Amino acid sequence: MKTTLDCIPCFVRQSLNAVRMVTTDPALQERFLREVLQWMVHIDMHLPPPVMAQRIHRRLKEIVGNPDPYFAVKRQSNRMALELLPELKTSVEQDPEPLVMAMRLAVAGNIIDMGVSKTITAADIQNAINQALTEPLVGPLAQFKQTLSAARHILYLADNAGEIVFDRLLIEQLAPRRVTVAVRGAPILNDATISDARDAGLDQLVELIDNGSDAPGTLLADCSESFRNHFESADLVIAKGQGNFESLSREQGNIFFLFKAKCHVIAAHAGLPLGTQVLAVPQNEVSHERV
Amino acid sequence: MKTTLDCIPCFVRQSLNAVRMVTTDPALQERFLREVLQWMVHIDMHLPPPVMAQRIHRRLKEIVGNPDPYFAVKRQSNRMALELLPELKTSVEQDPEPLVMAMRLAVAGNIIDMGVSKTITAADIQNAINQALTEPLVGPLAQFKQTLSAARHILYLADNAGEIVFDRLLIEQLAPRRVTVAVRGAPILNDATISDARDAGLDQLVELIDNGSDAPGTLLADCSESFRNHFESADLVIAKGQGNFESLSREQGNIFFLFKAKCHVIAAHAGLPLGTQVLAVPQNEVSHERV
Repeated sequence: MKTTLDCIPCFVRQSLNAVRMVTTDPALQERFLREVLQWMVHIDMHLPPPVMAQRIHRRLKEIVGNPDPYFAVKRQSNRMALELLPELKTSVEQDPEPLVMAMRLAVAGNIIDMGVSKTITAADIQNAINQALTEPLVGPLAQFKQTLSAARHILYLADNAGEIVFDRLLIEQLAPRRVTVAVRGAPILNDATISDARDAGLDQLVELIDNGSDAPGTLLADCSESFRNHFESADLVIAKGQGNFESLSREQGNIFFLFKAKCHVIAAHAGLPLGTQVLAVPQNEVSHERV
Repeated sequence: MKTTLDCIPCFVRQSLNAVRMVTTDPALQERFLREVLQWMVHIDMHLPPPVMAQRIHRRLKEIVGNPDPYFAVKRQSNRMALELLPELKTSVEQDPEPLVMAMRLAVAGNIIDMGVSKTITAADIQNAINQALTEPLVGPLAQFKQTLSAARHILYLADNAGEIVFDRLLIEQLAPRRVTVAVRGAPILNDATISDARDAGLDQLVELIDNGSDAPGTLLADCSESFRNHFESADLVIAKGQGNFESLSREQGNIFFLFKAKCHVIAAHAGLPLGTQVLAVPQNEVSHERV
């Protein structure tokens, strides 16, 4: 999807939140914000939002001289999620539809998104879990199940640290031997990298790769050739989170997006109310089947 | 008060809301937003926020070729408020402390602020009235009453259309013969001008002047000499709304600010929670007496 005018104030606010997270120096904060504003003046609205987010967070890392400013936050998210894992596993196992419950909980994990919120508390996560347990996942579930049952090579695009622990519940339901999990190629925001996938124990379960890119999304042209080969050869791609939806929503193929609609532009793009737990396919072909 | 980093994303968001209110042309909206971003790159953070707001709204009027794009909104606000006036008058008259109740209702009227919200509904206004009827006004009330009882020349700085009808309740309690009400010198946002003061019936009650400036606040250097003379010679200035607080909070003299803290920067500056009904004096000398 393209960048919208609504993304502009949101980028500015996110940039301020982000720079404040990584430095307490007001002069550095101001300098960074003015740089971001300068880029915004000339922003190419035809590009998807993760292109600007990538630029913002690359510069942030540079300006504070820290290649992974969200390291501690990511570790803590993984820890919080791992503590919840046994209980969540029980919810999945006891559900008459374990696959669907695992999908809903994977969406619940998508609340752990530092691009949207400044802070995520244990209470936020618990609220998202409660929503997952009680509210529908909206989208073409029958089509997903059909594609899933026929799939031989599944590529699972992870989104954030912490969230990736929730993803494990779903990956376990997919017959993991056919699954490859891809994470970002370098630290960006609180997006999951290889070390977060390992924290979640995914290295014991599936083939793990990184996409070679530091965008908070999947900008194919920016990804490694090796990743693109995986992407092309998968007969099912499960793409978690808003960033992957923003960057891949116009691609062709058996892609299923799984996310919580946390921003009103994306919710409108998917044709659904803010806060909805969404299963979507590319090019707005969103069915409103409730499961 | 100075502009803070938090004001920057807020200016960008307000600019987008404002341009959408006055034109449906996406190209014009985008062009305007890029212009605002360019100003933000070089914004002087030492100036109070109404300086940038003035620039934004001046340009908005120019770009859409309409000197008063909020005209219809202002008329509607006045009408909504006038319909409530008889009932509110009764609340004031029946209160054991009519002056204080009138102050609280004048603060309730401060919810009608298009700089903060995109739309104000009758329900928003009713909620603010309910808050006024039940929650305290926080500030140095005893000091205000003392200054008021000794005052011979009171200058009342109005804020927004609609709100100015609520102001009338308070002005009636002040012994109106000693009161001059000042409005903005030209249309800006939904700020009250002479015609709104007349809609509120203030021309029958007090001396009405305008401040000669089109800032959404009171930037003394931008005001007319005649207004500045009134300001200097008043022995009590009552300044309504955040814009007047932002622009006059560092001035000397018997100035009492009366507003609802609708923005977290201003609330923090006043040392009070968001949403508080505030009576404040210059230079952060906010007492937390509850009345």
